[in-house]
Amino acid sequence: MAAPGEPELIRTQLDEIHERFRTYGTEEVVSYYPPEAEADGALFGVAGTNVRGMQWQAGDCSVPFPLHSVSKVFTYGLALEDNGAAATLRRVGVEPSGDPFNSITFDEVHHRPYNPMINAGALVAADLVAGRDVDEKVDRILERYRSYAGNPDLAVDQRILRQQLRSNDRNLGLCYIMRSLGMITGDIEEVVETYLSACSITVTAADLSVMGATLANGGTNPLTGHRAVPREHVRDIVSVMMTCGMYDAAGQWATDVGIPAKSGVSGDIVCVLPRYFGFGVYSPGLDVHGNSVRGVALCRELSATFGLHVFADPEDARFGRPSVPLSPRDATTGTG
Amino acid sequence: MAAPGEPELIRTQLDEIHERFRTYGTEEVVSYYPPEAEADGALFGVAGTNVRGMQWQAGDCSVPFPLHSVSKVFTYGLALEDNGAAATLRRVGVEPSGDPFNSITFDEVHHRPYNPMINAGALVAADLVAGRDVDEKVDRILERYRSYAGNPDLAVDQRILRQQLRSNDRNLGLCYIMRSLGMITGDIEEVVETYLSACSITVTAADLSVMGATLANGGTNPLTGHRAVPREHVRDIVSVMMTCGMYDAAGQWATDVGIPAKSGVSGDIVCVLPRYFGFGVYSPGLDVHGNSVRGVALCRELSATFGLHVFADPEDARFGRPSVPLSPRDATTGTG
Amino acid sequence: MAAPGEPELIRTQLDEIHERFRTYGTEEVVSYYPPEAEADGALFGVAGTNVRGMQWQAGDCSVPFPLHSVSKVFTYGLALEDNGAAATLRRVGVEPSGDPFNSITFDEVHHRPYNPMINAGALVAADLVAGRDVDEKVDRILERYRSYAGNPDLAVDQRILRQQLRSNDRNLGLCYIMRSLGMITGDIEEVVETYLSACSITVTAADLSVMGATLANGGTNPLTGHRAVPREHVRDIVSVMMTCGMYDAAGQWATDVGIPAKSGVSGDIVCVLPRYFGFGVYSPGLDVHGNSVRGVALCRELSATFGLHVFADPEDARFGRPSVPLSPRDATTGTG
Amino acid sequence: MAAPGEPELIRTQLDEIHERFRTYGTEEVVSYYPPEAEADGALFGVAGTNVRGMQWQAGDCSVPFPLHSVSKVFTYGLALEDNGAAATLRRVGVEPSGDPFNSITFDEVHHRPYNPMINAGALVAADLVAGRDVDEKVDRILERYRSYAGNPDLAVDQRILRQQLRSNDRNLGLCYIMRSLGMITGDIEEVVETYLSACSITVTAADLSVMGATLANGGTNPLTGHRAVPREHVRDIVSVMMTCGMYDAAGQWATDVGIPAKSGVSGDIVCVLPRYFGFGVYSPGLDVHGNSVRGVALCRELSATFGLHVFADPEDARFGRPSVPLSPRDATTGTG
Repeated sequence: MAAPGEPELIRTQLDEIHERFRTYGTEEVVSYYPPEAEADGALFGVAGTNVRGMQWQAGDCSVPFPLHSVSKVFTYGLALEDNGAAATLRRVGVEPSGDPFNSITFDEVHHRPYNPMINAGALVAADLVAGRDVDEKVDRILERYRSYAGNPDLAVDQRILRQQLRSNDRNLGLCYIMRSLGMITGDIEEVVETYLSACSITVTAADLSVMGATLANGGTNPLTGHRAVPREHVRDIVSVMMTCGMYDAAGQWATDVGIPAKSGVSGDIVCVLPRYFGFGVYSPGLDVHGNSVRGVALCRELSATFGLHVFADPEDARFGRPSVPLSPRDATTGTG
Repeated sequence: MAAPGEPELIRTQLDEIHERFRTYGTEEVVSYYPPEAEADGALFGVAGTNVRGMQWQAGDCSVPFPLHSVSKVFTYGLALEDNGAAATLRRVGVEPSGDPFNSITFDEVHHRPYNPMINAGALVAADLVAGRDVDEKVDRILERYRSYAGNPDLAVDQRILRQQLRSNDRNLGLCYIMRSLGMITGDIEEVVETYLSACSITVTAADLSVMGATLANGGTNPLTGHRAVPREHVRDIVSVMMTCGMYDAAGQWATDVGIPAKSGVSGDIVCVLPRYFGFGVYSPGLDVHGNSVRGVALCRELSATFGLHVFADPEDARFGRPSVPLSPRDATTGTG
Repeated sequence: MAAPGEPELIRTQLDEIHERFRTYGTEEVVSYYPPEAEADGALFGVAGTNVRGMQWQAGDCSVPFPLHSVSKVFTYGLALEDNGAAATLRRVGVEPSGDPFNSITFDEVHHRPYNPMINAGALVAADLVAGRDVDEKVDRILERYRSYAGNPDLAVDQRILRQQLRSNDRNLGLCYIMRSLGMITGDIEEVVETYLSACSITVTAADLSVMGATLANGGTNPLTGHRAVPREHVRDIVSVMMTCGMYDAAGQWATDVGIPAKSGVSGDIVCVLPRYFGFGVYSPGLDVHGNSVRGVALCRELSATFGLHVFADPEDARFGRPSVPLSPRDATTGTG
Repeated sequence: MAAPGEPELIRTQLDEIHERFRTYGTEEVVSYYPPEAEADGALFGVAGTNVRGMQWQAGDCSVPFPLHSVSKVFTYGLALEDNGAAATLRRVGVEPSGDPFNSITFDEVHHRPYNPMINAGALVAADLVAGRDVDEKVDRILERYRSYAGNPDLAVDQRILRQQLRSNDRNLGLCYIMRSLGMITGDIEEVVETYLSACSITVTAADLSVMGATLANGGTNPLTGHRAVPREHVRDIVSVMMTCGMYDAAGQWATDVGIPAKSGVSGDIVCVLPRYFGFGVYSPGLDVHGNSVRGVALCRELSATFGLHVFADPEDARFGRPSVPLSPRDATTGTG
């Protein structure tokens, strides 16, 4: 259980960190996606939700943005649910490849994309979602995402989807190549529309923190108590975030920040600290890797301040890792 | 603190698992290293040491074997200590590359080997160890390894070292290529002899479990209380084991077993579960990847039985994760 | 001028070689394209036409087959004609890459496919053909191909084209990837239909030998006297056949056979010996590289028998290289 | 036979071209090898020798320089002579790889370096030279090279050899890697010393033109009448120069210049036009590929002026390809 006064202490720290990074790193920003997002370049929000449902917010946590690549995490979860871990693994691997997001190399030994966090693997995951047609698949995706966020209003932004469908050569190319290799079998327009619909679902930083907290909480939304993904698949989802979530800088992230995470080109990042927290960050300015400049800096700072690195020594935290609100089933882990 | 009776329960489980895997997977064995090790093919030991210094053993835990690639973990620690994290990172990366142990590809963007768990990176780490000559470097390595193990008798097996020095073309080739690229600067014979001396240090499964426990315990040997590596570097060592320790199967291991680990061609594996345990496993029969067949199977089973996966849900454990013997400084993490 | 009796001698040799290879290598055949072509597995024709318009035929020289990849040679010629050598080179290189026909690697330094003999480069060449739409482009291609063959009846086999358009994932994938990289800009369906229309033009071995002879004759059809391609581009076309025409075995072919050539999956091969001959070979059984088993063996034998290797010593020929029927403009080369 | 007055015409053209390029391209020079060669940056010589033994010289044709990579051509010839074509091909391929000279990739399908014109393949060729020790191997190499050049004074420059042996990491690295892969078996110091001794043999541009002419003349030195390499291997040597002689720009060279050639880091180039000529060029300033800036420009001009491209149309030559001085055995090729 949280120590008395601890929630307030966390709030203070979070506000202080948010304020400190509000004007950080503008000179590192190399692009906005889409370019017109530059107008929103000052937006900066961070929200945290713990597995007891307690929530902290700082900055612009009510501004909607499309999930983009962050959706890969949750669609992969649905692929696992619909096909089981073994059948999913036959179609998409879990190995970091050292390649960037749009890599056109494949794991030729196993005849599959390397992992579901790069585009090729995310397209296969979209192909694996059950449903007779795009509408059914997207409906199921939406339903799950709403469960993750505890927000029945999540929806596909049709304007963004149409825009994505218009500038889509790389994904179509990956799909045609993969179908020629027998890695996907479905209708390509459907696969791509399914994938891009998930990318075009809009959330807020607050929503995103709850989605992360649902994974941290074993798949059950800590606010609503509803299950978003079977417990048995959560560990696989989080593990692949840890090793592959930050593309070709995954190893550096695992060393420095040490929190399973996934970034998107909106400038969004979701972090999942199993049994503790989910974080959602949003700040549109992107670095050379396509990650949010402020988002990455903030996550690094949060990890250092609260000792959130999964391999952190308790002494690593400047302010102490926030206590886990332990449930009875955690008995063996902690209160002994 | 350990629950009353828990140590005995763990012992029983460990004995049961060891017995179950004693004859496991003989048909998967494709090689022994060196080939004459086949004579010892029945050897099979596993030892666990927790951060309180409690130790469990099953099977052949007193048989000495050379560390081989498991040494990469500890020499990397000494490189970090002697050079600092930043200077070390300039010379050797922390990214998984998807390549096998003897890869001759390099991170050309950063002009360094991808990580210290593949041979190229381990040779650079050996080059980074402080010392005026091989003797001084090897003396320092030995001193540190003895601190890790709490065993002042650890020594380089000179017969094995001479054998290694004789069949050493790949490592010499890597060194010459790297020196031509400016990635190493020292005398190549010295770099290779330093590296191979560390590989030729012999330990037992019991020693290895203590070496792992020292990392799990933030760098202080839980039996002797002596520090083997500065606390500030432990997290970096363990993180790179997590993402790169099992070569081209690192992602699969991170998903399935979820414990930072490193294997060697003797058939040895060290596992480190920070704040809990170190394990040392020894069984000479190797699979196609060069990993111990029984060792890998046993680690997978230990992870499942005790819920040791770093992202394990408490319910994942069939018998419950062994309780952490919490020290006072762990107060914020657990008992709140 | 041909020595008296020489044409008859060549005919005898050709008949003898054709007969000798009629039953050759059946055990090396690994596939037919399309599979139903196996029914025509016994078909085997070879025709040669020299730059004076003299023609020799042996076997099945009147059976029509689609050009498939052999068309890459002639469409590349049209791209050069329509854009000039410099502008064409900016879009598609002339370097052998050591890769197979369906490679998805690109010359990233120069931002273009490696060469026009692999699919990626052939698609760019199709994109470079002038014309307001597919119909106009295909009309111009047809017109040129008819000039090459001196056969006004050459036509696209619509049944084969439709079949190609149905199983076309790889080419579509390559186009989408290339458009995402800015290597092509046009409508992808048009580019692919243009390319596949050229692949679906049907010819006979006799036609193909005339098409080759037209290149050997500096771009002017030796039968009709009509120009099929500007003289200034012939050398570039033939050079790229020499270094890139036989995919990943181009070096071996250049060493062993030494005649600029291009193969197609129908089991067709065109050979061009500048200033001397063109050959057309047809035999459907394919080897592991997708080349005609009998075709390759026959070309090797023709090269050895007549000393046709471009670097052949006159003594290399068992029967003497057939004399060049020299035109007046050849005066400086030979008769002094 | 040469037309009356033709030799004088060639001399005039060669002088004119040499004069025109004497100050060419200084701004393209990026390096000299070794750096102190910059002092000789103005040196520029070109010599041509035809298969009748007629010789033309322009500029600095008596200045000695080490052969460096140009030696790869002639040592490969000796490897073929000592082992036969089939056994040599099992050890080193003939495929262009699209890689630069110091590539550390190998043809893994055939377990050998791609070709003998890159360092890895040249080291294997040196390993293939018969001889009980380095001295014997180098003696045989020297003997052959003297036959090629018709110059009994050719010798290894011991100062240059020692310099090469000191900065030799890349070649040692390649050898150790290849021995670890089973691609070479000999003593590595011996292999490298043999290779570097051949690189350190000094010649003049005049010598080099005779060495090329010997290959153009089927392996017999046209000045001395002595055989330097068995006729049966000449075609293989020249073919591999054509496809692999200019590293990663081999295709561009084959298209533009179209003469089998090999360059060295001294700023030397040898060209071989079978049945016609050999050229030797020397000018120390190097471009980004390590080729002589003036040398490449001059070869391009010579090819255009005299129509020397192997696929040149007679009309391509501005001045007409110099007539072949036909020997009786050439009867079938030309005068018929």
